[in-house]
Amino acid sequence: MTRVWTAALCIIGDEILSGRTQDKNVAQVATWLNDQGIRLAEVRVVPDDQARIVEAVNALRERYDYLFTTGGIGPTHDDITVDAVAQAIGVEVIVHPAARKILEDYYRDRPGGLTEARLRMARFPKGADLIANPTSGAPGINIGNVYILAGVPHIAASMLEALTGKLEGGRPMVSLTVGARAPESDVADLLRETEAAHPGVAIGSYPFFKDGRYGANFVIRSDDEELAQATADDLCTRLGTAGYDPVVGGI
Amino acid sequence: MTRVWTAALCIIGDEILSGRTQDKNVAQVATWLNDQGIRLAEVRVVPDDQARIVEAVNALRERYDYLFTTGGIGPTHDDITVDAVAQAIGVEVIVHPAARKILEDYYRDRPGGLTEARLRMARFPKGADLIANPTSGAPGINIGNVYILAGVPHIAASMLEALTGKLEGGRPMVSLTVGARAPESDVADLLRETEAAHPGVAIGSYPFFKDGRYGANFVIRSDDEELAQATADDLCTRLGTAGYDPVVGGI
Repeated sequence: MTRVWTAALCIIGDEILSGRTQDKNVAQVATWLNDQGIRLAEVRVVPDDQARIVEAVNALRERYDYLFTTGGIGPTHDDITVDAVAQAIGVEVIVHPAARKILEDYYRDRPGGLTEARLRMARFPKGADLIANPTSGAPGINIGNVYILAGVPHIAASMLEALTGKLEGGRPMVSLTVGARAPESDVADLLRETEAAHPGVAIGSYPFFKDGRYGANFVIRSDDEELAQATADDLCTRLGTAGYDPVVGGI
Repeated sequence: MTRVWTAALCIIGDEILSGRTQDKNVAQVATWLNDQGIRLAEVRVVPDDQARIVEAVNALRERYDYLFTTGGIGPTHDDITVDAVAQAIGVEVIVHPAARKILEDYYRDRPGGLTEARLRMARFPKGADLIANPTSGAPGINIGNVYILAGVPHIAASMLEALTGKLEGGRPMVSLTVGARAPESDVADLLRETEAAHPGVAIGSYPFFKDGRYGANFVIRSDDEELAQATADDLCTRLGTAGYDPVVGGI
């Protein structure tokens, strides 16, 4: 049995809970984690409220191998992620010299320069390290198994890029898709039997209505590539026998 | 002090955690709840794993006035939401006669008819009521303060539509936006002072980079419309005094 590495994501932001902003970070963090051989096992979205962030951070960092957070690390009063993570871990907040240097360089020739507000972005939980931010200067933060990323998706993406290959993980999750022009309820038994015949794989069923016809894509997931492939082959055989025309790669 | 009504959303689905599917339900449930005078206070995304769903359902239904779930109520083997909610509440799963009748009528003239798999969608926690589904037959489920919706966003939307005006809530959250061509870090102090001067409002700051210039939208939220308006007016005055040109409604 190979070790499964897990991560949680804590999204911090009233703007997600109010419906004002459509989240993009779950999908991009999930996809990136898959490539690192780490499985996203839980997501929580919490408001800009320090006590609520502390509670979620402690619940998630203890339960999973890694915890990522997004949001709340900008220069304004509603950016309290650093304070919350420091409180959760039980360390003080300090100004990180290397983060301050980056901000000084970044804002030297920019209008306004390094204001007090911008300097807030050099505040780190004591003992934390920087995550490079090639996009907009202010770094992300790593302390223990907690990775604090920006909330703006393209900035979060560039911080993930900086972390690529640096986290210990297991085998990347392999995902194979088989589609069929079958109402999913007609093949429910067949799917259940196929999954049961291949321990170590999960088969998800995702129905669609396209070009005036019903169909479904069946997604086979496993960290064992051979097993995933054998399951996909078996599913195609079973679908064929049942009179459907399976489409490898999905419809 | 008016009572604040709160809700949580539990999203059930491996397809969200794998990054395969971009979630749309957080934003639509949040927006709908705002109109009902209910505040979305937490979201959790959990995998298709009964123990994990039970745990999240119990944590959330006890903490908030309402709990909504999305996903996992279709006809296939990975649809286990009903079993999990029933276990969480401590009731058995029964076939609901009214739900069965709806499925019989819905599938009577459709290819395949009411198969065993489709009949799974009439399985309800004992004591639960139906939530109408004008889109695709199979109803949503309400038991106690738990509302079980479909995962497919347009089907979830039609179930929410059926619930509109039926849940007790407070005053709808009012949200006013003021924009300015100001880097958010330059107005951070001004924002903090404005928020502090108006207890009962929250001001969020959302920076953007548009048409080659930096700017930010400031979102003022309160369930007191007059207070929100007074805060927006005050923010505009302060921004004007600081040399910016505030844009009511946002940029």
